[in-house]
Amino acid sequence: MRVVKRLLPTLLIAGTALGSAQAEEGMWTFDHLPARQLKQQYGFEPSAEWINHVIQSSARLAEGCSASFVSGDGLVMTNHHCANTCLTDLSDKTHDYFHDGFSAADVSKEPQCPGMELDRLDQVKDVTGRVADMTSGKHGADYAKALQAANSVLTKECAGGDATHWRCDVVTLYHGGQTALYRYRRYQDVRLVMAPDQDIAFFGGDPDNFTFPRYDIDLSMLRVFEDGKPVHTPFFKFDPKGPKAGELVFTSGNPGRTQRSLPASALTFQRDVILPTIIGVYSTSEGALWQYSRESKEHLIEAQNTLFGVQNGLKSLSGTVKALREPGVMEKREAEDRALQAWIDADAERRKIYGEPFKKVEAALAIQRQSYGHDFAIARTVHGLLGDAVMLVSAAQERQKPDAERRAGYHDAELAELEAEISAKVPVHVDLETMTLALGMTTMRQMLGEDDAAVHLVLGTKSPNERAAELMQGTKLADPAQRLALYKGGAKAIQASTDPMIVLARQLQPVLDVIRNRSRDQIEAPMHEAQGAIARAQFARAQAEGKADTLYPDATFSPRLSYGTVKGWQEGATTIAPFTNFAGMYKHATGSDPFRLPQVWLDAKPHLTLSTNLDFVSTNDIVGGNSGSPVINRQGNVVGLIFDGNLDSLAGDLYYDGERNRAVSTDTSAIMAALKTVYHADALAQELEQGHL
Amino acid sequence: MRVVKRLLPTLLIAGTALGSAQAEEGMWTFDHLPARQLKQQYGFEPSAEWINHVIQSSARLAEGCSASFVSGDGLVMTNHHCANTCLTDLSDKTHDYFHDGFSAADVSKEPQCPGMELDRLDQVKDVTGRVADMTSGKHGADYAKALQAANSVLTKECAGGDATHWRCDVVTLYHGGQTALYRYRRYQDVRLVMAPDQDIAFFGGDPDNFTFPRYDIDLSMLRVFEDGKPVHTPFFKFDPKGPKAGELVFTSGNPGRTQRSLPASALTFQRDVILPTIIGVYSTSEGALWQYSRESKEHLIEAQNTLFGVQNGLKSLSGTVKALREPGVMEKREAEDRALQAWIDADAERRKIYGEPFKKVEAALAIQRQSYGHDFAIARTVHGLLGDAVMLVSAAQERQKPDAERRAGYHDAELAELEAEISAKVPVHVDLETMTLALGMTTMRQMLGEDDAAVHLVLGTKSPNERAAELMQGTKLADPAQRLALYKGGAKAIQASTDPMIVLARQLQPVLDVIRNRSRDQIEAPMHEAQGAIARAQFARAQAEGKADTLYPDATFSPRLSYGTVKGWQEGATTIAPFTNFAGMYKHATGSDPFRLPQVWLDAKPHLTLSTNLDFVSTNDIVGGNSGSPVINRQGNVVGLIFDGNLDSLAGDLYYDGERNRAVSTDTSAIMAALKTVYHADALAQELEQGHL
Repeated sequence: MRVVKRLLPTLLIAGTALGSAQAEEGMWTFDHLPARQLKQQYGFEPSAEWINHVIQSSARLAEGCSASFVSGDGLVMTNHHCANTCLTDLSDKTHDYFHDGFSAADVSKEPQCPGMELDRLDQVKDVTGRVADMTSGKHGADYAKALQAANSVLTKECAGGDATHWRCDVVTLYHGGQTALYRYRRYQDVRLVMAPDQDIAFFGGDPDNFTFPRYDIDLSMLRVFEDGKPVHTPFFKFDPKGPKAGELVFTSGNPGRTQRSLPASALTFQRDVILPTIIGVYSTSEGALWQYSRESKEHLIEAQNTLFGVQNGLKSLSGTVKALREPGVMEKREAEDRALQAWIDADAERRKIYGEPFKKVEAALAIQRQSYGHDFAIARTVHGLLGDAVMLVSAAQERQKPDAERRAGYHDAELAELEAEISAKVPVHVDLETMTLALGMTTMRQMLGEDDAAVHLVLGTKSPNERAAELMQGTKLADPAQRLALYKGGAKAIQASTDPMIVLARQLQPVLDVIRNRSRDQIEAPMHEAQGAIARAQFARAQAEGKADTLYPDATFSPRLSYGTVKGWQEGATTIAPFTNFAGMYKHATGSDPFRLPQVWLDAKPHLTLSTNLDFVSTNDIVGGNSGSPVINRQGNVVGLIFDGNLDSLAGDLYYDGERNRAVSTDTSAIMAALKTVYHADALAQELEQGHL
Repeated sequence: MRVVKRLLPTLLIAGTALGSAQAEEGMWTFDHLPARQLKQQYGFEPSAEWINHVIQSSARLAEGCSASFVSGDGLVMTNHHCANTCLTDLSDKTHDYFHDGFSAADVSKEPQCPGMELDRLDQVKDVTGRVADMTSGKHGADYAKALQAANSVLTKECAGGDATHWRCDVVTLYHGGQTALYRYRRYQDVRLVMAPDQDIAFFGGDPDNFTFPRYDIDLSMLRVFEDGKPVHTPFFKFDPKGPKAGELVFTSGNPGRTQRSLPASALTFQRDVILPTIIGVYSTSEGALWQYSRESKEHLIEAQNTLFGVQNGLKSLSGTVKALREPGVMEKREAEDRALQAWIDADAERRKIYGEPFKKVEAALAIQRQSYGHDFAIARTVHGLLGDAVMLVSAAQERQKPDAERRAGYHDAELAELEAEISAKVPVHVDLETMTLALGMTTMRQMLGEDDAAVHLVLGTKSPNERAAELMQGTKLADPAQRLALYKGGAKAIQASTDPMIVLARQLQPVLDVIRNRSRDQIEAPMHEAQGAIARAQFARAQAEGKADTLYPDATFSPRLSYGTVKGWQEGATTIAPFTNFAGMYKHATGSDPFRLPQVWLDAKPHLTLSTNLDFVSTNDIVGGNSGSPVINRQGNVVGLIFDGNLDSLAGDLYYDGERNRAVSTDTSAIMAALKTVYHADALAQELEQGHL
């Protein structure tokens, strides 16, 4: 499933250099679309109106997904798995909306999704020059601080004191090549309209995840409210006919992160250190959650969303590391790096401008190699209510500083979002959270050893099970009102608190500061500088070779357009057709989990046209974060809903292979049939057809 | 902990080429000891009597450990963790011997360890020429079959029809370089004499595992019986003073498996495919077992031994893969391979004899690359009672063939051991086994996909949880009598059985035969041939260079001697002293698991001499399988008990680094103090002092 890998610790360095597009490769910014390629390959020339309409009808879910407006009354379409958290949070002992689905009787009965935020792009401003001015001549910690200050100034200015309505992100494209300020219209009242059963949304479950043929309707419908009423925005017309084989289609979404131009040395570090560490820890979590889910119906319901996230992340990360271990992949990247350095070295002026960036990357990696395991083990423990406590302690600490000196996430312009997150009415499952906390502490001690200072702080003389139970039983942070009071009380309230989670967070704060500062000053800042130089050199070289319009920036969880064709692929001797249909779905059902169809679907079989297209694949270049993206046609109408990629596309973080990478979508014709024939959601179907309530 | 990695599937190809010893490196066969090195470095020349006494006083536990006789009345010393299975099997709802320890009131009260076998080396015969004659001119499947037949003939002849008393193993040393027939005196009545509490045997638990300083008394005492009476054998005199820093010490044990001369291509395959696959699957198991153990005291007791095995394996395999990912390690091995091929190519005669063995290895690996994940997933599911069922079906199938055509494990000479294994009174924990079976099936489906033929066979239309429960509820195989009856009933009884485990095993048998034959004929046989050629070329080259006496064979879980010095090491700026003592142990105790000392140890503190040596490190070259090895001095007296290696030694599968690799032992002075002062096991202490009951 194509969610952004939000589970990854932020210490993981994202690559943000630039790629060079082949065939239908590319995640293009809307101000730099591949006009020549579209015209040459498809004879298509999008108008300014077309582009603007696509931007304004698209949306981003702050938690890590993409979405689209599909009616003028705030109706939003995204994936079922993008609403997992909402469906779980709204469930209780008598309702399991995650598993059984949900349908609001009418607009007034649509419940709010706790903590959910939707953003719609409003404006993009190039601030490359201003950031360059503010960081000029600085290195290491000074460079990091100057970047932080630039971030503060720019976002503050952009939000104009109204962080409730505007969200501003400084987006570094082509690494140092371009810096842009993205302003989004922010919506924090997002409600649940409809979701089908999990057994059709994720039919085939983990075994089928990232495969094709597929038979999923991975859909949820949300509605955006403002001042208690549905908002009115531009929207995509819903085309219930779906696409045709061979048709040109676009996806408008927010791919999260690619590293298509990360230097070979950094990729080697990912392959040999970062990814194996994360995969090991996630695998242990998977086993613990799997067993927890077997214990009772209640535990199953509590843990299902977390287990899904872990399994999805595992499959995705395993795909990435497998791609990195393919014979020849690293050798190719190493040769490219050497060639670029040789191009730099061939000219004294270039040598002066770009220097030896690959050596700088290696120096930063040498530091990260020393600290990575330690930092990851601690970061992994700080989650759930302990994560909230650390956030509260940080908020108190950071708000005492001038805005420009604060860490990301604590600038004035970001405080509205922070407050919403802190006070969100997310249910806390004590058993589950005690378990994950104890497991985190166990893992931490395994990785750092009994004698580590942080381990002493966290555990004292207790075992992980004892300590986790003590913290969870003693804390009041499960209550949103308590969290909000501590937030509003600031440093004084935090200092005075005897809540054991806050006490521990206070003790951990110096340890975390050391980690954060080392990461920022000794790893991220020099990497950022070096990768910027690499990106600029690549750009200059491409321009010199007349290839600048084949370049696109690595993904940054900001709006991008990708184009492609509805098309199957060849798997050895087997031809994979681009479409599946309802008939195939009924054939694929064994009757047992996760190949069990919901009863409503079994009942509806005689009434459905079994040849209706269900899911399809296309050559669009997508990655995690594109989940929930609309698939649109030349007319700017929505014909599908991205929800996954095939197994080959898991290498998409690193490279795009037009022969084998495929995006996987649910067809709008299947969505319409499901709403009308299976769920009898007539009002909703009508809203899609008419474009309004 | 230095047990052999018995959890690894047998499909994992062991490297058995030869190493070239540096410093105190080497696991020497007793007929090829490093005489020159011992004399030069230590002025020590072991006599034939000394050597013979060491051989006859040493022992091997068939399950994967080493041991030693320490009295003339069959008393055997090994590790606590080598008796884990026995301690767990003898426990019940009211006794947790694994956790609480055990002490027999007298010899008549010593209970038998179910299924435990101890072997003592009796005779070694060189059969290189005979095996060469029997396999000459054969390749692939023919070669594999000829080897199988040679194995059958040689072991049959060696056991002389008395498999109850003799165990015969064909051991391939230096790969094709030497083949030896090892005959062991076999003992199948091994009883439990004494074991301390788990909390002192494995004080520090998983966090401290493979680290030093350590504070463990990883001891168990067994007794070997024959015809209902203790056996009388040569034995090591127990020296309760322990060793001194700088002293020359030997370990006599059975290192399980090294791959110090595996070609770089095969190591790369281990690093990139085999080890990541196993680590991922083990990590998931670890999480599931960890959570299972949290559910109740009963589950904790049931799962503790399995969880220990998984965590121990994980730490060990992670160390191996980390060593393989160290910058430069693979490059060095690749350069060595190229140099050897160049040496071969430099001479037409050599070229004719050795050919291009590295190319052959690569061809075999290409096949394994296709099949590994598939085969591993299936092998992983076949364990517990399903494993027993497959064994019973195989036993019926194989016994219908002439002895020379049977698979390893089913030759006439091996049937006594097989029958003992099948009828061992090992308790079956239904909850635990249902869980591990369901997890195995879940993993299998994750790895192979819903549409795989083997997945269809195993699951039908059921979910893993449903299917595992159905199998476990329907089977009668938990009863040893039922298993024995099916074994004795042969093919007819197996065909007639309606036990669901047997039915499934019958259905799986053709799938498993395909896997076994492919593995044997297309992977193992050509690898064996190629590695034999590599080993012979290395040997010839070493002889030409006058270095033949620095060569020792890769470990093969057969008796070896290693020598070394009691010596700490340097860890960055820190000097690690060679000894710990009781004072350090009390300091290291936090009071909570796994740093909680048993009450008897807290009570005994005033009566112990706190400066008594507890654990020590030495430079002896050991790996998994050496667990339980005696540490002996020049006089041939036992001064310590091997139970672990430090973290650096985890790379010992691949290379030995005298600067950093250390073996970890419990000091005999601590053992004596524990027996006398803590456990008041006066009769046992006296037996050790006097050498008889």
